[in-house]
Amino acid sequence: MRDFSRDTSVLALNTATLGHILDGHGAGWSPERVTDACAERGFGGIVFWRREIGGDAVRIGERVRAAGMQVAGLCRTPYLTGRDAGSDDEVTASIDMAAGLGAPVLTIVTGGTEPGTKGLEESRKRLAGRIARHADHAAACGVRLALEPLNPMFGGNRTCVFTVRDALEVCRALDLPHVGIAVDVYHVWWDRTLPEVLSGAAGKIFGYHLCDWLEDTGHMLLDRGMMGDGVADLKALRRMVEAAGYDGFCEVEVFSADNWWKRPPAEVLDVIVDRFRTAC
Amino acid sequence: MRDFSRDTSVLALNTATLGHILDGHGAGWSPERVTDACAERGFGGIVFWRREIGGDAVRIGERVRAAGMQVAGLCRTPYLTGRDAGSDDEVTASIDMAAGLGAPVLTIVTGGTEPGTKGLEESRKRLAGRIARHADHAAACGVRLALEPLNPMFGGNRTCVFTVRDALEVCRALDLPHVGIAVDVYHVWWDRTLPEVLSGAAGKIFGYHLCDWLEDTGHMLLDRGMMGDGVADLKALRRMVEAAGYDGFCEVEVFSADNWWKRPPAEVLDVIVDRFRTAC
Repeated sequence: MRDFSRDTSVLALNTATLGHILDGHGAGWSPERVTDACAERGFGGIVFWRREIGGDAVRIGERVRAAGMQVAGLCRTPYLTGRDAGSDDEVTASIDMAAGLGAPVLTIVTGGTEPGTKGLEESRKRLAGRIARHADHAAACGVRLALEPLNPMFGGNRTCVFTVRDALEVCRALDLPHVGIAVDVYHVWWDRTLPEVLSGAAGKIFGYHLCDWLEDTGHMLLDRGMMGDGVADLKALRRMVEAAGYDGFCEVEVFSADNWWKRPPAEVLDVIVDRFRTAC
Repeated sequence: MRDFSRDTSVLALNTATLGHILDGHGAGWSPERVTDACAERGFGGIVFWRREIGGDAVRIGERVRAAGMQVAGLCRTPYLTGRDAGSDDEVTASIDMAAGLGAPVLTIVTGGTEPGTKGLEESRKRLAGRIARHADHAAACGVRLALEPLNPMFGGNRTCVFTVRDALEVCRALDLPHVGIAVDVYHVWWDRTLPEVLSGAAGKIFGYHLCDWLEDTGHMLLDRGMMGDGVADLKALRRMVEAAGYDGFCEVEVFSADNWWKRPPAEVLDVIVDRFRTAC
């Protein structure tokens, strides 16, 4: 296992961290400007959101690689379950977009509880069925699907997969080499079973997402902390995913409407590099 | 195991459901008026909050029993960990208040992460130490301590115990007959490991709290659903706690600032009885 504790080439920016993916937030930087600002600071990768890409996937992917970086991933499939689930065509289009970008990983946030059902069984059955239906196309495109468990506060309308254990169960049932998990510290930092659960996840961790859990979280979605500002044991979490064989990017994803999204993007990127070296 | 599916004598009201524990919410009913309204509807028990009781514990407890009900419990100890932890004197006073009321159970919400620490180890050590320090006094008072895991969204400043498994681990390490757990569907409904975990909890479940998890949760603390209005599989959850030997009260605890707290308390109590019979 390589020691990358101070090597920013494993650092990837999830563009949501600059807030520019949402109207009225961030400085309105283009994908190109974000790419150059990351490259200048030694980031190795960048992760985009679909709404930023439009029909420009191939061009943007080439632009990132020309700057010396990788497109580390794409956020994300439409929801696969629940009231707000997307169509199969939309899922296929998200896979095609990832392929166009040259993104090796497409994240899945599952979506919520199936309408008219109680508990999670029906939702998880539909989830597994929909992943299975799209897995061949993803594999043919060279795109791996990373199922991301979300903090249980997102049950109901955003997810039916809450823990790394939940996500690995879905993966094991599907048994497809291109279907794995993403581990985001915001969602899983509290889970005391992680050392045990991750020790059985060899080869299945396709993404590792960094931020911090603030002592006081004012908003479920948009009040994530910068690494080092919260209570998550980020060094222990990184040791766990590395011990499970993960050697991919450390992707910084800080949704922070009232703090980091209000700062100049260049400042945010500088802080990320510093915190990555000291707190992660 | 008795069949109490339609027997409201196992139904208890947590007074927070009427909103009157917070300034500016609810109809300002006194403990006596809540007691009578519950007794009229066949509730078997009532659970108070400390701020409602003041120096009147003995009188209020007798009043509840005179109305034909039990004081089912008291909410709650001061926090035992984290920035906002209460003093030992405050913890002792909460135990004494439960004893004065004749409440057999005092709930523990742990409090958050210990200042200056990362992760949860230090917080859980302090938690176990503080429970152990107060357990003898609680036992001597006939008060059982029910450690309540909270939904992981309450990490940081409210809890360091997130799952039934977490809470049982603390209990097992302490190995004290008067220290067990409370299972609240709001906090644990999402946990796929519950059937297995609860099957090992025989004799340790001291409370079962009812509400529902709404498909759209607008506020972490104050947007709980009435039973039947959400996505939790309440019938399956009740079967699980009963299968683990629990035969105590089903305590309804609905924090709902924008919906149920705005309705007349008599209406809320009527709905609870109806939903308890049909949805739980």
